Amino acid sequence: MPSATSDIGLIGLAVMGQNLVLNMADHGFTVSVYNRTTQKMTDFVAQCRASEPSAARVVGFAELSDLVASLKSPRKIVIMVQSKAVLPSDRDGVDAVIDQLLPLLDKGDIIIDGGNSNWNATIRRDKQMREKGIRFIGSGVSGGEVGARFGPSLMPGGPEEAWTHIKPIWEAMAAKVNPKTGKAIEDYAPGKPVTEGETCTALIGPDGAGHYVKMVHNGIEYIDMQLICEAYQLMKTLLGMSAGQMSEVFGTWNKGELDSYLIEITTDILQQADPKSKRGFLVDKVLDTAGQKGTGKWTSGSALDLGIPANSIAEAVFARCLSALKDQRVAASKKLRGPSKGKKISGKAKLIEAIRDALYCSKICAYAQGFQLMAEAQKEYNWKLDFGRIAMIWRGGCIIRARFLQKITQAFRKDPKLVNLMLDPYFKKALHDGQANWRKVVALAAERGVPAPAFMSALAYFDGYRSAVLPANLLQAQRDYFGAHTFERTDTPRGKFFHVDWPQKDRPILEA
Amino acid sequence: MPSATSDIGLIGLAVMGQNLVLNMADHGFTVSVYNRTTQKMTDFVAQCRASEPSAARVVGFAELSDLVASLKSPRKIVIMVQSKAVLPSDRDGVDAVIDQLLPLLDKGDIIIDGGNSNWNATIRRDKQMREKGIRFIGSGVSGGEVGARFGPSLMPGGPEEAWTHIKPIWEAMAAKVNPKTGKAIEDYAPGKPVTEGETCTALIGPDGAGHYVKMVHNGIEYIDMQLICEAYQLMKTLLGMSAGQMSEVFGTWNKGELDSYLIEITTDILQQADPKSKRGFLVDKVLDTAGQKGTGKWTSGSALDLGIPANSIAEAVFARCLSALKDQRVAASKKLRGPSKGKKISGKAKLIEAIRDALYCSKICAYAQGFQLMAEAQKEYNWKLDFGRIAMIWRGGCIIRARFLQKITQAFRKDPKLVNLMLDPYFKKALHDGQANWRKVVALAAERGVPAPAFMSALAYFDGYRSAVLPANLLQAQRDYFGAHTFERTDTPRGKFFHVDWPQKDRPILEA
Repeated sequence: MPSATSDIGLIGLAVMGQNLVLNMADHGFTVSVYNRTTQKMTDFVAQCRASEPSAARVVGFAELSDLVASLKSPRKIVIMVQSKAVLPSDRDGVDAVIDQLLPLLDKGDIIIDGGNSNWNATIRRDKQMREKGIRFIGSGVSGGEVGARFGPSLMPGGPEEAWTHIKPIWEAMAAKVNPKTGKAIEDYAPGKPVTEGETCTALIGPDGAGHYVKMVHNGIEYIDMQLICEAYQLMKTLLGMSAGQMSEVFGTWNKGELDSYLIEITTDILQQADPKSKRGFLVDKVLDTAGQKGTGKWTSGSALDLGIPANSIAEAVFARCLSALKDQRVAASKKLRGPSKGKKISGKAKLIEAIRDALYCSKICAYAQGFQLMAEAQKEYNWKLDFGRIAMIWRGGCIIRARFLQKITQAFRKDPKLVNLMLDPYFKKALHDGQANWRKVVALAAERGVPAPAFMSALAYFDGYRSAVLPANLLQAQRDYFGAHTFERTDTPRGKFFHVDWPQKDRPILEA
Repeated sequence: MPSATSDIGLIGLAVMGQNLVLNMADHGFTVSVYNRTTQKMTDFVAQCRASEPSAARVVGFAELSDLVASLKSPRKIVIMVQSKAVLPSDRDGVDAVIDQLLPLLDKGDIIIDGGNSNWNATIRRDKQMREKGIRFIGSGVSGGEVGARFGPSLMPGGPEEAWTHIKPIWEAMAAKVNPKTGKAIEDYAPGKPVTEGETCTALIGPDGAGHYVKMVHNGIEYIDMQLICEAYQLMKTLLGMSAGQMSEVFGTWNKGELDSYLIEITTDILQQADPKSKRGFLVDKVLDTAGQKGTGKWTSGSALDLGIPANSIAEAVFARCLSALKDQRVAASKKLRGPSKGKKISGKAKLIEAIRDALYCSKICAYAQGFQLMAEAQKEYNWKLDFGRIAMIWRGGCIIRARFLQKITQAFRKDPKLVNLMLDPYFKKALHDGQANWRKVVALAAERGVPAPAFMSALAYFDGYRSAVLPANLLQAQRDYFGAHTFERTDTPRGKFFHVDWPQKDRPILEA
């Protein structure tokens, strides 16, 4: 029977699990580890011993009961296994691990799900654990493998009294940001973790709040990436630029307002030669079919369910779907003609600047949609989210980290009740300054036949949101015509409904 | 104990249920009716006796057991109650009625759910009924109140051997189409049903197929309506046209390719004076906040789940969501500026023609998305759908009925394996002919600040679908960069995956 000396346990030693363990060990925590296939655990521990400075703080166990016995009270156990549950009623691998753990735990112990679980499953598990006296935290972990190893963005959701117990570990593990620049501090190495700066974690809210916010992060990641792709496509198609030339453009953009991890890696990707054929740029050899793992879809589905117009996030998901239909597209390209070739485009530098503005304005809209979605979700699920803090947490560790997020934090700090990000003076000015160019780029894409669903949908969102009157009056009249769905009037108080017996000749108006 | 003389029973006497009863009675069938609140049943039967020519064939029952006893064998019972079940696990009012019926039925009896049930619930119920020896049909009913009364579009899904029993009733009840014109025959009156022409019903497929196809119909209805609204908005905003003037335009459009029920009622709506204030057009007094009942959302959700780029259908749903945020929009309209005012638009007639082309091209894309979605659904759910027949069924009775559907039927009759509607020669030509105008309208909407999410998303879909190469190569490179998601190459066989260790200096390429 091991003595209870470890600070935390972790179950599931795939690469994300391994890296979180090493991260915690680097910060001085002793971590007990377990894996269903014992060999994987022994291999990992042996590998740590050989190469990791903090290896002494990683302790392996072949039996779950021994892992549990090795933990200080209240026990803290992180589960890092794939979740497939989407609905509260779905049970999956996370539930299987929980079932094994429950008989071994004492009241007050804490289970943490660090996988990409659906918030609905997390809400259900929180409730079930609560009934058994166990505390449950669903923690979003963003930043991929490197983030997990040296500083992820961590979005835990669960009871406050459980959070206080894991807080020191989470705050140590998470990415750190230089509060002056708003940028992540990245001079880390194994055994030399970053310990200064503002930490990229905080309790997001109760039960599923952490996983929900992590999901919205991913939805925003989808559209962020799609916007970059559309900028790339426009430069490539309209200006005939090479990957290398575009790398320079993205490199320049990365010095300004667009400064972000995704622009940075795009700059890096585009200048990379093909190491296989030794000819040309690697990106030109990559097949144009995008995969997806579901969180973008969940975000769009939640927006549909909650009635929030997150159309650009959905367009980014659909763009991936369309990319996956490669064979159909190749066949269609031989049958469906585009527009007749227009005259050569002049003013290259100006057009590049216009594309930048289109990207920036669209990005503001995409984030506005994401934050508006979270604002609605907090009503639906009875959470209280701190949007300024969420933006802060996203500044480091995660894929969408960007200088931009500091501005979002400031916007919500200035006005915690900000209804839409576009209304914040800073972002409003950016939209006003950039809109002429944005419109120009969308018009050009339409005329020249370059698909730009994200730029277009963001513009339609902007123009729709700033429209006091939309044509939905006609739509409601149609609905009343064929389905007697009734309508409100502009000249009577809201909540008073009318119906016209349209197909009749006399058409009396009735209060419904 | 009543003798078993009725042809069919119906439970649930809200307006849709009542109208289906009268429709069946008009066609010579004797219908037994029941309602949970007996008063509603007795009122309905009394009202029939007073005013309906076929009233003698409507027989009311206060007890379910008496209703069941009144039916010829195998018994056929239609349930017309609201369904709230979305997931297979959800139980609702339809299940409650089924539970009451089951002990009263014999093996081989047929229950028909004629509500707007979710296909997942229908799949579950089909399975449950099958286990009990009862046959179950989930039948989509489209056409609103008038359709139900005089000829709806009926989309039943269930076992073939159950369909043969209800087929004569369904074929009689359904809308009828003149096979030459492809248009619904609408010279009906109480007691004088339409009995000639091609009937707008057929067995769609097993279990949930009928309700699924009905749902896609509704998703298409959403985008069809949104496209009309955008055309209206552009004419109103860019050309300053009055509702009455636009009514004339829609009236003209209704004589050509756009000939459809929705264009027809739009023509009618727009010329209607306000009967309340006696001043101006009624449509200008209708509040611009659109409601929705969920089927557009389901269609978009299914598209996301199945990975089909039905982006325009989703945009139509999001447009309704945005319209519902009326107060936010009014507030934002005072803060967010649009583009600077451009010069006055000349060439009114030409622009109207361009808007018509934009509407028609976008409509083709929207239907292409809907049919592509059904094609994927039939793989997912193991159905075999006849798309030509589905388009035929939609020609009459339902909200999206249009001359256009005849062309869709022809397209699938010519090529039952047609992968995408846009590739059919007729529609391809329409897109080729209309695209210059379509692009012009989208460009103008972007430049002038008129929200046109549906026109834009349809154009992005068209341009994306005909792109042999999309920028998803960059996106896959990004995913490989931060998440080691791997990529395929354009110069190696499909299914071979590569990974580059991007953040490293030497970046060895690895087969993953």
